[in-house]
Amino acid sequence: MEKTSTDTLPLTMIPPEEQETVCIFGTGDYGRSLGLKMIQCGYSIVFGSRNPRTFSLLPSGAEVLSYSEAAQKSDIIIIAIHRDHYDLLTALTEVLRGKILVDVSNNLKMHQYPESNAEYLAQLVPGAHIVKAFNTISAWALQSGALDASRQAFVCGNDSKAKQRVMDIVRALGLTPLDQGSLLAASEIENYPLQLFPMWKFPLYFSAILCVFLFVYCVIRDVIYPYVNEKKDHTFRMAVSIPNRVFPIAALTLLGVVYLPGVIAAILQLYRGTKYRRFPGWLDHWMLCRKQLGLIALGFAFLHAIYTLVIPIRYYVRWRLQNSTITRAISKKENPFSTTNAWLNDLYLSFGILGFFFFILLGITSLPSVSNVVNWREFRFVQSKLGYLTLILCTAHTLIYGGKRFLSPYSLRWYLPSAYILALIIPCTVLVIKFILILPCIDKTLTRIRQGWERNSKGSKSTLNGQTDI
Amino acid sequence: MEKTSTDTLPLTMIPPEEQETVCIFGTGDYGRSLGLKMIQCGYSIVFGSRNPRTFSLLPSGAEVLSYSEAAQKSDIIIIAIHRDHYDLLTALTEVLRGKILVDVSNNLKMHQYPESNAEYLAQLVPGAHIVKAFNTISAWALQSGALDASRQAFVCGNDSKAKQRVMDIVRALGLTPLDQGSLLAASEIENYPLQLFPMWKFPLYFSAILCVFLFVYCVIRDVIYPYVNEKKDHTFRMAVSIPNRVFPIAALTLLGVVYLPGVIAAILQLYRGTKYRRFPGWLDHWMLCRKQLGLIALGFAFLHAIYTLVIPIRYYVRWRLQNSTITRAISKKENPFSTTNAWLNDLYLSFGILGFFFFILLGITSLPSVSNVVNWREFRFVQSKLGYLTLILCTAHTLIYGGKRFLSPYSLRWYLPSAYILALIIPCTVLVIKFILILPCIDKTLTRIRQGWERNSKGSKSTLNGQTDI
Amino acid sequence: MEKTSTDTLPLTMIPPEEQETVCIFGTGDYGRSLGLKMIQCGYSIVFGSRNPRTFSLLPSGAEVLSYSEAAQKSDIIIIAIHRDHYDLLTALTEVLRGKILVDVSNNLKMHQYPESNAEYLAQLVPGAHIVKAFNTISAWALQSGALDASRQAFVCGNDSKAKQRVMDIVRALGLTPLDQGSLLAASEIENYPLQLFPMWKFPLYFSAILCVFLFVYCVIRDVIYPYVNEKKDHTFRMAVSIPNRVFPIAALTLLGVVYLPGVIAAILQLYRGTKYRRFPGWLDHWMLCRKQLGLIALGFAFLHAIYTLVIPIRYYVRWRLQNSTITRAISKKENPFSTTNAWLNDLYLSFGILGFFFFILLGITSLPSVSNVVNWREFRFVQSKLGYLTLILCTAHTLIYGGKRFLSPYSLRWYLPSAYILALIIPCTVLVIKFILILPCIDKTLTRIRQGWERNSKGSKSTLNGQTDI
Repeated sequence: MEKTSTDTLPLTMIPPEEQETVCIFGTGDYGRSLGLKMIQCGYSIVFGSRNPRTFSLLPSGAEVLSYSEAAQKSDIIIIAIHRDHYDLLTALTEVLRGKILVDVSNNLKMHQYPESNAEYLAQLVPGAHIVKAFNTISAWALQSGALDASRQAFVCGNDSKAKQRVMDIVRALGLTPLDQGSLLAASEIENYPLQLFPMWKFPLYFSAILCVFLFVYCVIRDVIYPYVNEKKDHTFRMAVSIPNRVFPIAALTLLGVVYLPGVIAAILQLYRGTKYRRFPGWLDHWMLCRKQLGLIALGFAFLHAIYTLVIPIRYYVRWRLQNSTITRAISKKENPFSTTNAWLNDLYLSFGILGFFFFILLGITSLPSVSNVVNWREFRFVQSKLGYLTLILCTAHTLIYGGKRFLSPYSLRWYLPSAYILALIIPCTVLVIKFILILPCIDKTLTRIRQGWERNSKGSKSTLNGQTDI
Repeated sequence: MEKTSTDTLPLTMIPPEEQETVCIFGTGDYGRSLGLKMIQCGYSIVFGSRNPRTFSLLPSGAEVLSYSEAAQKSDIIIIAIHRDHYDLLTALTEVLRGKILVDVSNNLKMHQYPESNAEYLAQLVPGAHIVKAFNTISAWALQSGALDASRQAFVCGNDSKAKQRVMDIVRALGLTPLDQGSLLAASEIENYPLQLFPMWKFPLYFSAILCVFLFVYCVIRDVIYPYVNEKKDHTFRMAVSIPNRVFPIAALTLLGVVYLPGVIAAILQLYRGTKYRRFPGWLDHWMLCRKQLGLIALGFAFLHAIYTLVIPIRYYVRWRLQNSTITRAISKKENPFSTTNAWLNDLYLSFGILGFFFFILLGITSLPSVSNVVNWREFRFVQSKLGYLTLILCTAHTLIYGGKRFLSPYSLRWYLPSAYILALIIPCTVLVIKFILILPCIDKTLTRIRQGWERNSKGSKSTLNGQTDI
Repeated sequence: MEKTSTDTLPLTMIPPEEQETVCIFGTGDYGRSLGLKMIQCGYSIVFGSRNPRTFSLLPSGAEVLSYSEAAQKSDIIIIAIHRDHYDLLTALTEVLRGKILVDVSNNLKMHQYPESNAEYLAQLVPGAHIVKAFNTISAWALQSGALDASRQAFVCGNDSKAKQRVMDIVRALGLTPLDQGSLLAASEIENYPLQLFPMWKFPLYFSAILCVFLFVYCVIRDVIYPYVNEKKDHTFRMAVSIPNRVFPIAALTLLGVVYLPGVIAAILQLYRGTKYRRFPGWLDHWMLCRKQLGLIALGFAFLHAIYTLVIPIRYYVRWRLQNSTITRAISKKENPFSTTNAWLNDLYLSFGILGFFFFILLGITSLPSVSNVVNWREFRFVQSKLGYLTLILCTAHTLIYGGKRFLSPYSLRWYLPSAYILALIIPCTVLVIKFILILPCIDKTLTRIRQGWERNSKGSKSTLNGQTDI
């Protein structure tokens, strides 16, 4: 609604003989919204209804006729009625013969019916050309010319001319048509608006489980242990201290998990000696949700940053600092300065800040509009080089944080090591393997494999082929 | 300029007989920029000028002729002259008969003339087909192939074939044509480049007034009151302390204002028993600028976050903490630890951080490129579920901040309650109403109404209709 | 891969007689990926290969024939073989006569060969119409329907009909074709995927040199000077203190550098009395990378913000504060409160926060998807008004930071002034010149010049012209 408002847009004054007439079956919300939008874009609209009377809500300029009368006015008919009522159309089979029927329907649940609505329609009205379209565009987006929702209209159908005409309408309405092939694609297209972040499901579940595990681990070490051993009430730590332990560990682990499938794939290619064999399904899926895993890791890193910056205004921290100062003042002991501590503390902060900074850069380049203006080489440079730099900085941040306490037996509580040790497992594994993989001798073989060379190729042909063709 | 540079782009070598010739009247900046761009995209250009001589600044390869000679070379003529000089064209009426005239002009002020420039042109040259286009594209954007400015060219005109040909040119130049209907839309299209954030006007004014009111309120309580009662100079609070009170209150109030029209609309629909009656104008307008209100609230929340994080490096805070420590050290009194205070303080910080985090997520999903890749269900999930979660967290943050002081008579100064109390009014109202609305009995009725059911429908027809059609 | 998965996409069921057949020479990765994508979009594909046998990796439904057999099946042939093997095609000159050959190749290095691959192909197969396309689209992007990489396919060629047909294919695959003119553009298009952030090169080098210089400067003043004079080991300052001095200075200097070319250009236009003379090359280039300079400045500002917020949790800072408190407690001296210090400190923080806030707003509006929805007037308003506001706030922040120490001889060390003085040079220069330029008398002349007026125009014609035409 930033640019155009349906109320102020003048109805078009195109002489009637030049306008294309499109018929819409159904005068529900969606039919009316689509009709209004099409009238604004210069189409002439005829509504088909079981009860042809002019509703006050219909866009002015539109006619309402019975189904069969309306169908005769146009060779494109948009079917804006519920699937349950498609059987009404069987009576019109003769009138609809050879016409283009546009199925815009959606279901309430995924896989609600054995076949897609569009295929069901094709069975009911065998003589017509069925095209699936518009179901991904909401009535609200049509009315408001919304910039806020997707403008991509997925289109499929068996008749390419019919599909072409529908795609022309889609384009005329200012939307982007995407041809998805034959009507078999309809069930996928119908599922699409029902999806709720499908690529985010695994990453979100994984990080939720990770967080719960880490939270319980930290509660045992930092709340239950001191209560059992020293009868101290440290429950308040669950509000800030423990989240600020869980979040960084989750962030670093997830960042490691983003780069782990890459090194596994490289090892697999080295072992197989070819890139022409499919990866196992789990690895494929893992690689496809690396972006989502990375963004969740960035979210945790962001939370860690704020939870850390908030430390000095916490009541507990102020109380502890003040009391330690008072104790020293009373005993008249100054605190000696340790340059080593200053170095370690400042380095640890610096690595953390720089790692966070590059992590945010990575996040920004994964915004669709930013990644769209970079070329393939730039995109890979950022995601690979900058990504590994981030991983190295964040791992170093954690290692220095541990500092001298690292693996010290004093930090064990009930044989549980400090939580930050857990954060280091995956990132360090990835970095060590990656370091081995970029050793010149191994890197050379890997590069050759990725350019199409095969170690165990039966003849020279495929090798030759790999070199001849792009 | 990231990808293409006008200087390095080779002129096209297409044999002349295959090129389409387009005529441009006027050799000003805009005419020249458009001509250069069109030559680069494979058109052959003839300039029409009152003083046909070859300027050094004209793109090489373009011809300059008199108006009437140039007009005969092409049936598409781009009119790149000021409206004030359109009367020159009346002399050419015969030559221009049947030609397509493209009006690219803009005005200096909104509603400067009674009719749009394009309509004025249509009156002057009655035999020609007038198409409005290109006025939203700046000369600079044309020259630089800029990715930084809008690439949307709004097109309107009465003759659909003429419009189609102009839209083909727009597309060939790498721009996105948007058909806006008949020439009546021209005045709106001409106003468009003159608009300055029209949807932001009301939200900005509203938040400016809110901020001024809150600032004055806080100055009275925190600066004038202590000065009058205790003769203390607290003016320095106006730099950080008071802004850090005004910003969070403004943020939370605006966030409440974002969700208030939604619950008002729901109440109205419940009261009326139908969704088929228009909301009052003010409610419609309010709902349309919710995104802008939310983003301003996010801005205030961001400022509040930084102003808060900066607290421990403030001179005043360091001075106060040091003096309290010194006083205690001198009197040799340690500060007793209060677990309740630690809990309240940490919870308040934690809720604030999490609320801020989800608020930023909401902000990111409102970026056009992000909202473009999510479907309608995902977009609503984020804006509604995540939005209410943010509102709940931020309200809880404010409530716990108040803590025990909440409504305590000691915090009244001149009968004025603490400022944060003001922040709670709208959010709490919204949350209470929303809680009532999602009670099963009320929610069921509301859902039925939103699916098209009407309580007081005269017959069964519209009810049936509401169920049959989408 | 968010929306479509190659595995689940049904192969199209379009009857064969309606499908367009396209031939692909070469069965390498790229040829196969392109073939698969085209089959999914409804094309019929014939592969041409030197060793025509069916590979297991070829998309099902595709035929593999010898080059000459395959070429006869279609009049569009996509050449997916390496440039080194183009000479194989000379044998097929007769078969390829009049056909459209699409060159999709890329090189490994820029300017690897004297002529572009497409032009080389045109020499080898003189009777064919060569079109360059697809080289900017990666095989991976084709396979995954990736939203993450660029979807822009640059197209060029001498035959406009051939180019049109290739652009239709590009569009059918859901990509955006951009016509770049004749085949002469091929060498630029072939260089494009090899570029690595070309517009970022100068800004990055410039800021790297600036940072190194400032780092050395600060190390001399803050580490070497105290070591030489007082034998104190301040090396730990290199981890946080000195970066937090280098980053803000670099940020403010770069922000000044962003606005400097604008005022230089204005002075040049005033001096020359016309806007119709080209600026010198260095100024043009400088103006073109202002956005990149600004974003790097924002990065430094962001780092400065976090390095500053982290101050109170630094070991060194806590140690210093604690010791100063202990000393005062022991000597039983309270710290007197200075309202002036409180004012200066709070103002300095407040200006910094507000400057940072507006800087981030500027950064957000430079995101491609955001700048795409604002019009030209809004874009200039943000970039100019908001930009100068940011510059003023950040300069004020630095000036107040200096406070009373400003230019005090006590802050000189080895005749070197405090580092923040360096940060003020460029911004203050820009602001002073800008202030002079907006004085009414000068502003009026400048506005007239920018509207096309020329002081020393030889005749009245160009002046008149400047007023008549847009």
